[in-house]
Amino acid sequence: MTRFKATVEYDGRDFVGWQRQDNGYSVQQAVEEAITGFCGETVVVHAAGRTDAGVHALGQVIHFDLVRDAAPDTVRDAVNQHLKPAPVALLAVEVAAPDFDARFSARRRVYRYRIVNRRTPLVLDRGRAWGVPVPLDSGAMQAAADHLLGRHDFTTFRSVHCQAKSPDKTLDALVVGRTGDEITVTARARSFLHRQVRIMVGTLKQVGDGKWRPDEVARALAAHDRAAGGPTAPPDGLYLIEVGYD
Amino acid sequence: MTRFKATVEYDGRDFVGWQRQDNGYSVQQAVEEAITGFCGETVVVHAAGRTDAGVHALGQVIHFDLVRDAAPDTVRDAVNQHLKPAPVALLAVEVAAPDFDARFSARRRVYRYRIVNRRTPLVLDRGRAWGVPVPLDSGAMQAAADHLLGRHDFTTFRSVHCQAKSPDKTLDALVVGRTGDEITVTARARSFLHRQVRIMVGTLKQVGDGKWRPDEVARALAAHDRAAGGPTAPPDGLYLIEVGYD
Repeated sequence: MTRFKATVEYDGRDFVGWQRQDNGYSVQQAVEEAITGFCGETVVVHAAGRTDAGVHALGQVIHFDLVRDAAPDTVRDAVNQHLKPAPVALLAVEVAAPDFDARFSARRRVYRYRIVNRRTPLVLDRGRAWGVPVPLDSGAMQAAADHLLGRHDFTTFRSVHCQAKSPDKTLDALVVGRTGDEITVTARARSFLHRQVRIMVGTLKQVGDGKWRPDEVARALAAHDRAAGGPTAPPDGLYLIEVGYD
Repeated sequence: MTRFKATVEYDGRDFVGWQRQDNGYSVQQAVEEAITGFCGETVVVHAAGRTDAGVHALGQVIHFDLVRDAAPDTVRDAVNQHLKPAPVALLAVEVAAPDFDARFSARRRVYRYRIVNRRTPLVLDRGRAWGVPVPLDSGAMQAAADHLLGRHDFTTFRSVHCQAKSPDKTLDALVVGRTGDEITVTARARSFLHRQVRIMVGTLKQVGDGKWRPDEVARALAAHDRAAGGPTAPPDGLYLIEVGYD
């Protein structure tokens, strides 16, 4: 038995999310079926981040075990062949230690959220970014973001359906950048609560368009109440870009 | 009668190209129908670049005349409303001089071609770039590109169906850049022959993967024969990014 670690890219629009579900096609199902198609083995694939429907990945990390002895590059090319035409592909495959776990061994997850801030509706970025027509002040958004750094009870910024036992998380970075009409929000933490990045972005957008002052985000955080936070940003703009391990 | 100039973005995948055709939906038809939907006037829209099926635009320029007196921003917003859900939108609209012509007044057209050079099939860039799995030497591609600069008979680099009277064109810039696994080829000229950019890129790719030496591109140019050039690169990677006027 060999454990493989793989980095995965996908377009989240065509899926119900990472995780297998009864009501539609998941990325997990696509990858598991492609592995079976390649080698005949039935596998369960574990991922670092269980992304929601519509959320994309440029650097999702997964692991799975194969009885068959295969070179990592062969696994990558053969699984990619079987994944077509689904919008998922393995970028890299390597042999991992038997105790490597894509989810539990992860020390760092990095998500990027793309906002296209222009009056014209999105065309080439449709489904790939959040189109916000009113002008956003990215400086105010960064000032607000700074209030969220560090270890906190993030109840305000998690879905009411979040199943994590504790709402306590440490946010290591939350960086707002602007290039032309594109605003990116990059978030880094060991792990995130369910919908945490999208709720943080939806809240920062309230600051960006002047509805909230930056320090009101600190007050929302202290409320420990989802109702005190901003709306959830749409999945379109969210990308899991990197998962780090020791 | 007021003449309007507009900058247009579109995703070329859903269209038979810019120009109206009997066999499918064109960008021109989409824009003309949206204008009629907004104001009831039947118009003919003229474009700077008659892009082929599958070719995208970030900065196509068009002009059209309206009897109705309307503010440019109103025209933009209303036409965009009527364009939905087609993947086309007006980025900016302004009033132009009565003799302004999007096509004939243009002094400079800039196209960008995107190659993603990696072994893994394209996912998020599918239909938006040319995926080339074999490693390309972008330095050799630039050396080859330099042979094409200036005024030449570009018969080798035009479609056999090209209807331009003369094959003589002046290529002002052809720049190959690489960032990670993405290679871009940016081409600037007053005007181009039919498929010229795609044939130039297809030929540079032959150099990039070692099939041709850079100086063989000079020989191909001198042959004045389409058969001496490389294959035509797919439309997926091509973007009309800018049209310049005096």
